[in-house]
Amino acid sequence: MNDKNATPISQLGEFGLIRHLTQDIKLTNSTSYRGVGDDCAVIEPQSGYRQLVTTDILMEGIHFDLSYTPLKHLGYKAAVVNISDVCAMMGLPQQLLVSLAVDKRFSVEDVDQIYSGIRLACDRYGVDLVGGDTSSSLTGLVISPTCIGQAQADKIVYRSGARDTDLICVSGNLGAAYMGLQLLEREKHVYDQQVHKGVSSVTAQPDFSGHEYILERQLKPEARLDIVHRLKKADIQPTSMMDISDGLSSELLHICKQSQTGCLIYEDRIPIDLQTAAMAEQFNISPTTCALNGGEDYELLFTVSLADYDKVKQLEDIRIIGRIQKAQYGCELETSSGQDFPLEAQGWQAMSETPDKSS
Amino acid sequence: MNDKNATPISQLGEFGLIRHLTQDIKLTNSTSYRGVGDDCAVIEPQSGYRQLVTTDILMEGIHFDLSYTPLKHLGYKAAVVNISDVCAMMGLPQQLLVSLAVDKRFSVEDVDQIYSGIRLACDRYGVDLVGGDTSSSLTGLVISPTCIGQAQADKIVYRSGARDTDLICVSGNLGAAYMGLQLLEREKHVYDQQVHKGVSSVTAQPDFSGHEYILERQLKPEARLDIVHRLKKADIQPTSMMDISDGLSSELLHICKQSQTGCLIYEDRIPIDLQTAAMAEQFNISPTTCALNGGEDYELLFTVSLADYDKVKQLEDIRIIGRIQKAQYGCELETSSGQDFPLEAQGWQAMSETPDKSS
Repeated sequence: MNDKNATPISQLGEFGLIRHLTQDIKLTNSTSYRGVGDDCAVIEPQSGYRQLVTTDILMEGIHFDLSYTPLKHLGYKAAVVNISDVCAMMGLPQQLLVSLAVDKRFSVEDVDQIYSGIRLACDRYGVDLVGGDTSSSLTGLVISPTCIGQAQADKIVYRSGARDTDLICVSGNLGAAYMGLQLLEREKHVYDQQVHKGVSSVTAQPDFSGHEYILERQLKPEARLDIVHRLKKADIQPTSMMDISDGLSSELLHICKQSQTGCLIYEDRIPIDLQTAAMAEQFNISPTTCALNGGEDYELLFTVSLADYDKVKQLEDIRIIGRIQKAQYGCELETSSGQDFPLEAQGWQAMSETPDKSS
Repeated sequence: MNDKNATPISQLGEFGLIRHLTQDIKLTNSTSYRGVGDDCAVIEPQSGYRQLVTTDILMEGIHFDLSYTPLKHLGYKAAVVNISDVCAMMGLPQQLLVSLAVDKRFSVEDVDQIYSGIRLACDRYGVDLVGGDTSSSLTGLVISPTCIGQAQADKIVYRSGARDTDLICVSGNLGAAYMGLQLLEREKHVYDQQVHKGVSSVTAQPDFSGHEYILERQLKPEARLDIVHRLKKADIQPTSMMDISDGLSSELLHICKQSQTGCLIYEDRIPIDLQTAAMAEQFNISPTTCALNGGEDYELLFTVSLADYDKVKQLEDIRIIGRIQKAQYGCELETSSGQDFPLEAQGWQAMSETPDKSS
């Protein structure tokens, strides 16, 4: 963003920029009838399918910090976060629209970087970029993606379908993105202090070796479309599902509230990566707390009928962490030492008084 | 926004605010299967229909100025601007999702005002509010609406369908929203100067009497869904269509470029309201310039086959302003004095160097 040879956006104008960004986009899904270039994108729904639609808004300083977030990664993440919501209903993502507002710090090349990340995510997830809006901003970068997916009516999984005795499952591992964020914030702080003291900004470069995994989980998360496919292939129809963006605790409480059930999960069943646990130790935080209350994992949380136990336990990268119980028994965590504690929603809140998402 | 009794958003938190804003929303369209409350909204497409999807981003300081824009009007306008894009393809708007980012100046009551405007527009246009996202902002208000509509495949009208000898039509009248904006900007300037000089802010209140129409066109525009219905009822299938958000000139050039045609329009056929013309005279601008290059009219610009002349000329609030011609004859305006000038796209550009949309 500080390249003096960069092309100012004003040189292209709004229409020129849109043309520049979208001229070589191709549509690959049969449901994408018409993409960028008219008042609306046109979608041809497949007969017998329902459409899933979700929108997000990512604000600079709230959801991302450009001092340590490469623009391409940011574009990728903005798309993935949105695509993840379609996966979270067992849908197949099909189209993406992206609204973007950039201020004067941004050059055409910067916007290209953001778009290259968005398009990489589209390629990766088989999604067509079919529209959007581009605007200037007086104050910071805003990205608002909208994803459209499809699923057969009887295959869509809602948050409200969990039933007593269902097994609670999660994909991948939890808390890694949160620890990645803590590490980035700490190193930013150290860097700022060193540069402030007169240390050369080259000497002050942080060393992230050995922490690549948690950094990648924070900076370049993935949507678990692979898990959706794996469940379909194994003929498992989850009874409820959502993606974990605000921490396991918060999401599980959503499912239990909407399903009118309780739940019991076991601390020692919660999947946590070694890098996450090591970093949590450095920060003197319990890894379980990271998994319960850290955000941005974008793993899938879902419940399956007890009858699916044999099928689900064989699936790679899926862990059974507990079970649904009657609402009267509450929503509880059984610790490794055998004590039960009620789950609380302390997840990251984008609307909290302090905009720092690490709080 | 300055009420000391107002409820801080932090008192409700993100989930509380979303619940507060969405708890009493009802779905009215048969295509709206599931609204707010899950990872995605679920839409049940009507068999044989295509879906139209469009998204916008409205930035404080670029698209609106809160010093003279009531929040309820702003919410209404944000929805209408987006709904208008669905109308512009002869679609029927069905669902709306709204992403909103607010900074610390905003109370729960302020967000209620914005939402009441959005919901009023939804009621007015038969649209269901089915989803969105809510975030805090470090720097100003952002609204990003996404509208979904539907139309039968063979009834969708694109920008690219205009043919030689087609008639060019516009709904309503043009330039009013632009003159409304000029008036508001002027009065804001006068007000600021007077208050700066020590005049009481009560005494300094501007007098807008006699200008109500142009102010309403700027602050509370409408999407011309009525025109869509009127055309359908008259069994007129336009050959091309778009809505006029950046001025007649710019939009007509879009249609001609995408249709590979030229056009000829007549200055004395361009519909301009008396209040627009009077205000233009005060500002020493030609009313035609307002119509050609002023933005935010949200009227419909469309072309119809010459064979529809008898049908279209009888339609209320629609004016034939010229005709499509072969590309080699260019895109021209014939003035009242009989001179021909090439049309130029000088419309408002949201990406221009200066963020002032009045420039």
